[in-house]
Amino acid sequence: MQNIQSYIENNKDRFLSELIELLKIPSISADSAYKKDTIKTADAVAKSLEDAGCDVVEICETDGYPIIYAHKIIDKNLPTVLVYGHYDVQPPDPINLWDSPPFEPVIKETQLHPEGAIFARGACDDKGQMYMHVKAMEFMTTQNQLPCNVKFMIEGEEEVGSVNLAKFVKENQQKLSNDVILISDTGMIAKDTPSITTGLRGLSYVEVEVTGPNRDLHSGLYGGAVANPINVLTKMIASLHDENNHITIPGFYDNVEELSKDEREQMAKAPFSLENYKKALDIDAVYGEEGYTTNERNSIRPTLDVNGIWGGYTGEGAKTVIASKAYAKISMRLVPNQDWENITNLFKKHFESIAPKGVKVKVNPHHGGQGYVTPIDSIGYQAASKAYQDTFGKTPIPQRSGGSIPIVSLFEQELKSKTILMGFGLDSDAIHSPNEHFGVWNYLKGIETIPGFYKHFVELSK
Amino acid sequence: MQNIQSYIENNKDRFLSELIELLKIPSISADSAYKKDTIKTADAVAKSLEDAGCDVVEICETDGYPIIYAHKIIDKNLPTVLVYGHYDVQPPDPINLWDSPPFEPVIKETQLHPEGAIFARGACDDKGQMYMHVKAMEFMTTQNQLPCNVKFMIEGEEEVGSVNLAKFVKENQQKLSNDVILISDTGMIAKDTPSITTGLRGLSYVEVEVTGPNRDLHSGLYGGAVANPINVLTKMIASLHDENNHITIPGFYDNVEELSKDEREQMAKAPFSLENYKKALDIDAVYGEEGYTTNERNSIRPTLDVNGIWGGYTGEGAKTVIASKAYAKISMRLVPNQDWENITNLFKKHFESIAPKGVKVKVNPHHGGQGYVTPIDSIGYQAASKAYQDTFGKTPIPQRSGGSIPIVSLFEQELKSKTILMGFGLDSDAIHSPNEHFGVWNYLKGIETIPGFYKHFVELSK
Repeated sequence: MQNIQSYIENNKDRFLSELIELLKIPSISADSAYKKDTIKTADAVAKSLEDAGCDVVEICETDGYPIIYAHKIIDKNLPTVLVYGHYDVQPPDPINLWDSPPFEPVIKETQLHPEGAIFARGACDDKGQMYMHVKAMEFMTTQNQLPCNVKFMIEGEEEVGSVNLAKFVKENQQKLSNDVILISDTGMIAKDTPSITTGLRGLSYVEVEVTGPNRDLHSGLYGGAVANPINVLTKMIASLHDENNHITIPGFYDNVEELSKDEREQMAKAPFSLENYKKALDIDAVYGEEGYTTNERNSIRPTLDVNGIWGGYTGEGAKTVIASKAYAKISMRLVPNQDWENITNLFKKHFESIAPKGVKVKVNPHHGGQGYVTPIDSIGYQAASKAYQDTFGKTPIPQRSGGSIPIVSLFEQELKSKTILMGFGLDSDAIHSPNEHFGVWNYLKGIETIPGFYKHFVELSK
Repeated sequence: MQNIQSYIENNKDRFLSELIELLKIPSISADSAYKKDTIKTADAVAKSLEDAGCDVVEICETDGYPIIYAHKIIDKNLPTVLVYGHYDVQPPDPINLWDSPPFEPVIKETQLHPEGAIFARGACDDKGQMYMHVKAMEFMTTQNQLPCNVKFMIEGEEEVGSVNLAKFVKENQQKLSNDVILISDTGMIAKDTPSITTGLRGLSYVEVEVTGPNRDLHSGLYGGAVANPINVLTKMIASLHDENNHITIPGFYDNVEELSKDEREQMAKAPFSLENYKKALDIDAVYGEEGYTTNERNSIRPTLDVNGIWGGYTGEGAKTVIASKAYAKISMRLVPNQDWENITNLFKKHFESIAPKGVKVKVNPHHGGQGYVTPIDSIGYQAASKAYQDTFGKTPIPQRSGGSIPIVSLFEQELKSKTILMGFGLDSDAIHSPNEHFGVWNYLKGIETIPGFYKHFVELSK
């Protein structure tokens, strides 16, 4: 029985060549021209899970691309880990910006990856990170080190919205029942700074319309005597933040969870240079909610930003007009426990209520999504943390992302279990961009770290 | 010796046919295709002034269309009235909206003009109103009732900015020296409600640019942590008015002349229905500076309006972006004594000073013009008021216009004399629009009223 380090040492060339074969298939879910390839990729993933020792492997047909379900149940009384990943990839465009063809993987050394990195579309997002779990499974089954039950759910439509996955999850709650969900589809701070993504922000996106007079007016003859929709809109938007940049919508913060001192201290450990941050954006100062750091403002705090505004004359030169209408697109980033539909209603109610006489105001909700968080005191987080400590020799830093992975809050809602986001990618991996790559070191480190999660999760669950 | 009423009675058909001949010549200064016609019009005007009894008539060449100068000096010790008008007209487009060809004048009865109205481009603006002065001159010279010296200055480029007139005035201050300037190029409130325009507003027009980060950012990853140029711009614009809609720019009101209680009372006599005003604009309330009526807000008070605003994503659907830049076009309507260049500097200084850290702000002045006012206690105003009382049997209402006639403040600056704006047109005359017309009654009433101005001006000057 080998330990994971020696197993990787003995098999790493195969681990790499297998992933490279998978990366050669252009599984572009957004482009129907690649339908055959995408289905071929699904079959290859199914085969790899069989080879990795799963007892049951199903290719579940959907209205779109199939979902691969697999499991190995060793003891109904032991915990069950559900692994999620996706085998589809982003389109490679603009193709001319790639140094090597996106579906002809090559391993090249880079400054950050002296051990080499695999350059190919999907190398990191998510074929490479998904395949780490397949190889970790292979290690655990072949070396009799699988401590609990495992289920896999690998989809092929993540890059196009996971519509059929949502349906699949709702209809298969029993089949997918688990104690914790494990996903590697995010990143970590740096090779020497492991981190675990513990939170994702939700979103509420609305468009507002302010109507004043029934037609555009001459500002000389009407200026100062009628409500100017643009002036009114600026006043209304400005009033949505107070002097401390707190959002003034009544009830907006009601369900916002205040982070524990401990978690904020953990977050603060993330290496961060305010000087470099400002330099990179060419700003002389940051700006935001009083009482929070930059990293807190863009992760654990809800925000309200105007994403677009327009009205009146915007062409060359000057026109002395008072516009009939003014518009803005406004989005709110939400934190866990803020329900996006509730927040959308609070915004609508408030924004309409502050409209002065002389104008009509419409608020049109666009779309939204829930936020998500994993408590750092949960067994799942602690197990992941210990696994990183074993392989990196460092306690990973809990990290809140400002972005969103909608599927994660769906899992919690439908399957009633928490998700652990063990990402091994780096910001520099260029996912969704030309020359996407994934460090060989990161790939193997992921394979090395994952089994530790299982071990510690089972122990902590006892 | 006839009085003016009988003189008009005996000559009105000729007064009409002469004007109609003048209206047939398409003197469109904006369109070089009509150059010959425009010059032909200048000659016709010169001829008419000769016929009206002027001793000297000059066709003064300029870099553009000629300026007709004429005078009759009867006694150097008597006051001198300078009459200004223009013989050029607006283009008639859209031509298909005219009920009769714009340069084939016809007299048609309308509900408002049972005595008929002359339909033609320039009928009111300004050939018709200018020609009233020519015919009033004819009456005064032929009937030995000219009580003072008269000078005429009739230009051909008013509709294209009067660039060469400004030059001409600066270079001929002696030749144009006068005690009062008389212009009929405005309107009155109604046929039974004579009014005199006593004020015109000035203008300062600027464009502002707010720059935040050096590129558009993802609102999920940066939202709440950096200054959003659009949010900042709305806050900055909103702060330009206080809760009473007073403008907050330091020094903005320093030179604003407060109107006498008497003048405000005179203004308040103008017939005005707030209900109809709101109905016409489809608004449920008016809006503006605390302590002033609607008619005061758009005439005697300075205002600040955003004429256009834009930034970020303004297309279909949603984009979660934080824009790098946001823009607005802002104009201020100014009242007499506010210097537009000074106000532009005050705005620039203030707007840049309120920019929060984290953004850069640029203010680009566009253009501007001075306001103008005629005190109602001036001899010129009083003479005009008495003239209206004689012919309308009513004291005219002093009226401030929200718009601007830049040339008027130039006259005051260069010739050091006040202008009296005796307008006989109506809002319904459709100047600058299809089917422009001028009531026969208004035309003859102007000819009847003008000589009274001369008489009273000379008497009051004694």
